[in-house]
Amino acid sequence: MFKKKRVYLDYAAATPLSGRALKAMRPYLESDFGNASAIHTEGVLARQAVEAARERIACALQVRPEFVTFTSGGTEANNLAIVGTVEALAREGRSFAEMEVVTTEIEHPSVMNTMKMLGVRGVKVKYVPVDEYGLVRLTALQEMLSAQTVLFSVAYANSEIGVVQKLHAIKKALAAAEKRFGTEIIFHLDAAQAPLWLSCQFGTLGADLVTLDVGKCEGPKGVGVLVRGRGARLVSTLFGGGQESGLRPGTENVAGIVGASIALQEAQKDFKSRAEKVSQVRDAGIKYILKEIPQAILNGPSGGERLANNINISIPGLDTEFATIVLDKQGFAVSTKSACAGAGGGESLVVKAISGDADRSLATLRLSLSPQSTLADLKRLTAILKQHINKMAKLPRA
Amino acid sequence: MFKKKRVYLDYAAATPLSGRALKAMRPYLESDFGNASAIHTEGVLARQAVEAARERIACALQVRPEFVTFTSGGTEANNLAIVGTVEALAREGRSFAEMEVVTTEIEHPSVMNTMKMLGVRGVKVKYVPVDEYGLVRLTALQEMLSAQTVLFSVAYANSEIGVVQKLHAIKKALAAAEKRFGTEIIFHLDAAQAPLWLSCQFGTLGADLVTLDVGKCEGPKGVGVLVRGRGARLVSTLFGGGQESGLRPGTENVAGIVGASIALQEAQKDFKSRAEKVSQVRDAGIKYILKEIPQAILNGPSGGERLANNINISIPGLDTEFATIVLDKQGFAVSTKSACAGAGGGESLVVKAISGDADRSLATLRLSLSPQSTLADLKRLTAILKQHINKMAKLPRA
Repeated sequence: MFKKKRVYLDYAAATPLSGRALKAMRPYLESDFGNASAIHTEGVLARQAVEAARERIACALQVRPEFVTFTSGGTEANNLAIVGTVEALAREGRSFAEMEVVTTEIEHPSVMNTMKMLGVRGVKVKYVPVDEYGLVRLTALQEMLSAQTVLFSVAYANSEIGVVQKLHAIKKALAAAEKRFGTEIIFHLDAAQAPLWLSCQFGTLGADLVTLDVGKCEGPKGVGVLVRGRGARLVSTLFGGGQESGLRPGTENVAGIVGASIALQEAQKDFKSRAEKVSQVRDAGIKYILKEIPQAILNGPSGGERLANNINISIPGLDTEFATIVLDKQGFAVSTKSACAGAGGGESLVVKAISGDADRSLATLRLSLSPQSTLADLKRLTAILKQHINKMAKLPRA
Repeated sequence: MFKKKRVYLDYAAATPLSGRALKAMRPYLESDFGNASAIHTEGVLARQAVEAARERIACALQVRPEFVTFTSGGTEANNLAIVGTVEALAREGRSFAEMEVVTTEIEHPSVMNTMKMLGVRGVKVKYVPVDEYGLVRLTALQEMLSAQTVLFSVAYANSEIGVVQKLHAIKKALAAAEKRFGTEIIFHLDAAQAPLWLSCQFGTLGADLVTLDVGKCEGPKGVGVLVRGRGARLVSTLFGGGQESGLRPGTENVAGIVGASIALQEAQKDFKSRAEKVSQVRDAGIKYILKEIPQAILNGPSGGERLANNINISIPGLDTEFATIVLDKQGFAVSTKSACAGAGGGESLVVKAISGDADRSLATLRLSLSPQSTLADLKRLTAILKQHINKMAKLPRA
C-alpha cells in the first residue's frame, strides 16, 4: 500500500529482486526441485541450472567458471576468503603465529570480526591507516607489508561512506612487497557494494579473491559469490559434502543461484550508464544538502572516488536514529550506518576511523540511492530533515 | 514435460517446495525486500516476517522462539551445533585436547567431516559402534562416555538406511554419565530427515541441539534451522554482524525463512498420518522387492525402527549406479546413497559400517518415498530392476 509513495534510499542494505532474476528462479521454486548432486533427471536439471548460472557469472566477470564459488551471502564469502586462505596455509605447515594479515579499520563487520577471530587464534592482524576520506594510505601500506604478510583485505567500495579504493595502486604496493620478500600476498576485495555501479571484471581488479553479495544488486537474499584467481589457495571453512569443488558443502540453493546469476549479469551489463546517471543525482543532492543544512559534513570523498549511489553525512548533535524514524514516517527509507553494524543508533566505527571525531561518528546518515532516485526526492528529504533539525534545536536540551 | 510420468523416489535428497510455503514466500520475493536489520518501514516488515517465522517454528516444535536459529541449511546447522559447542567450551578456557566428542560411523558427511576436522585440531573423536541395523550400541555408549565427553552427535533418522535411533535410551545413557562424572554432555541430534515422518517436539527428543533442513521437508533449499535447549552454550562459527542473536551473521534470507516456517509447520502437523500411510507402502514394497529379487538384502531395520519413507537394499554384484541411470530412463528417480556423499557410484560408508561387507556396500540402492508414493510404483520399479538384473547376468563378465 505504502509502496507508491515510498522513496527507498537504503540500496546498500537491501535491494528489490529484479523481475528477470525472479522469473529465472520460478521454475526452480515451482517444479524443478532436484538435488544438484543426484544423478537422475531431476538432479541433472538442477546441476545444469547451477552450472549455467556459474558460467553466466563467469562470463559477466570474465573469469573461468571453476573459479566461481556460491555461498550463502557476502558474510560467508568474506569468511571463506579470509579464513580459507589462512587455513590453507596452515594446512601447508605454516603456523598462525607466522602469519600476518593486513586490513583497514573501516571494513564491514564480516571482515572486521573475522580478522579479530584470527587475532585471537594467534595471527597478527595489522590495520593500515586510511586518510580523511577513507582511502588506504599507500605509503603506510608499503611500510606495513612484511615477509610474514599473507593477505590484504579491503572493500572495493565502503558500505558506509562509499569510498572506492585505488585498486591499481594497492596492487602495485602488494606486488612490490611480494617481489621484495619473495612471497605471495593474497589480495582479497570485498566488492559487495560494487556490481551495480563499478566494473567487477576480475582481471582488471587485480585481486585474487573477490566477494560479491547478490542481495545488494537486485538478486535474491541468501546468495553470495566468491570469485578467485589462479593464485588463490583456499580450503573450505564448513565441513560436509563435496559440493562447490569441496569449497562449500551443502545442498545447492538452485533457485537462489540461478537468480544470482541473472542479477549479477544485469548489474554488470549496464553499470556504466547506471552509475553515470545516479552519480549526477548524488552530486547534485550532496551540493543541495550541504547548502540547505550548513552544519552537515560529508563523510567520504567526492566525485569519482565515491560510489555512485552513496551519500553519507554527519549532522553533529543530531540524534540521527530518531531522524531516520522521522524520515521513515514521511516516506523516506534511509539508515544511519551499515545494517550489519546495527542500523539504528550508536557510533559509526567507519566515520570514527576517518575523522577521529566522536560527535561526527555519532550522528551519521546514509542515503544509498537506487537507480530510480531523483534530485527531487533528495530535495524533499532535505526539506523534511531541515524542518526536523530546526524543531529539535528549539527543544530544551535534556 | 516428463513430470507427469515421473516417479520420484529421492525424497531424502530433495523435495518439491510446498505450494503454501511458496505462496507465503512470494511477497518477500516480489515486493517486501527490506533488510531485517534496518529500522525503517521496509526493514520492520522484514523483521516482523523473520520473527513471525521463528515463532511459527517455535510453536511447531514446542520450544521458545529465542532458541530457534536460522542457517543456510542442514550442513551449516550441523557445523554450528558441533563446532559452536566445542568453541564455546574453548572460550571458557577448556583446551581442545581436554575434550572428547562421541558420534557413530554412519553419520552424514556434514557431521563426519566436522568431527574429522575437530580431530585434526586436537579434540578426541570416539565412534560408538552400531549394530547390524545401525542402532547405537547402548552398552558400548555407556562405556565410551567419560569425564572428558562434551558432546554426543547422532542422526535421529539415518539419511541412507533410515534407522531411527532410540532417543530415550541414548538420553538415559548420557544422563547417567553426566551424573557419574558430574559433567554436562551436549546431545546433538541431526533431525534433517525427520520432520515429515517423526515428531520433532523439542521437549520429547531429549536433545540439547536439533538440526533441521527445510529443503528435505518441502521447504526452500538454502535454509536450515538449529534449535537449542536451555543447556546448550554455543558460539557463532561465522563472523560478522550481530544477526540471529550473534549466532549467525549475514543479512537474513527473509523469503527462505518464511517458507521454511510454513514447510516445517505443515510437516509436523500431519506427520503421524503421513508416516502411517507411507510406512505401509514401504513395508509392502520391501516385502515385494525381497520376494521378486531374492538376492536383494535390506539395509537397516524393519518396522517402527525404520524411517517411514526409507527403503535401502543392496544387490551384491550389481552396478547400482548404472541401475539408477536405467531406472531414470524408465521414469524412476532413485539414488545409491546420500547426495552429499556423492549420489553416484562408490561405496556406502554407512552400509560398510553396519555390515562390514564390501560387496553389499558397493551395491546400494536407496528409494526414499514421497507422501504420494504407491505400491504400484514400487512394483513397476521392481519389474524394471529385475529385468535389468537379468540382462546384466546374461552379459559376459568383464
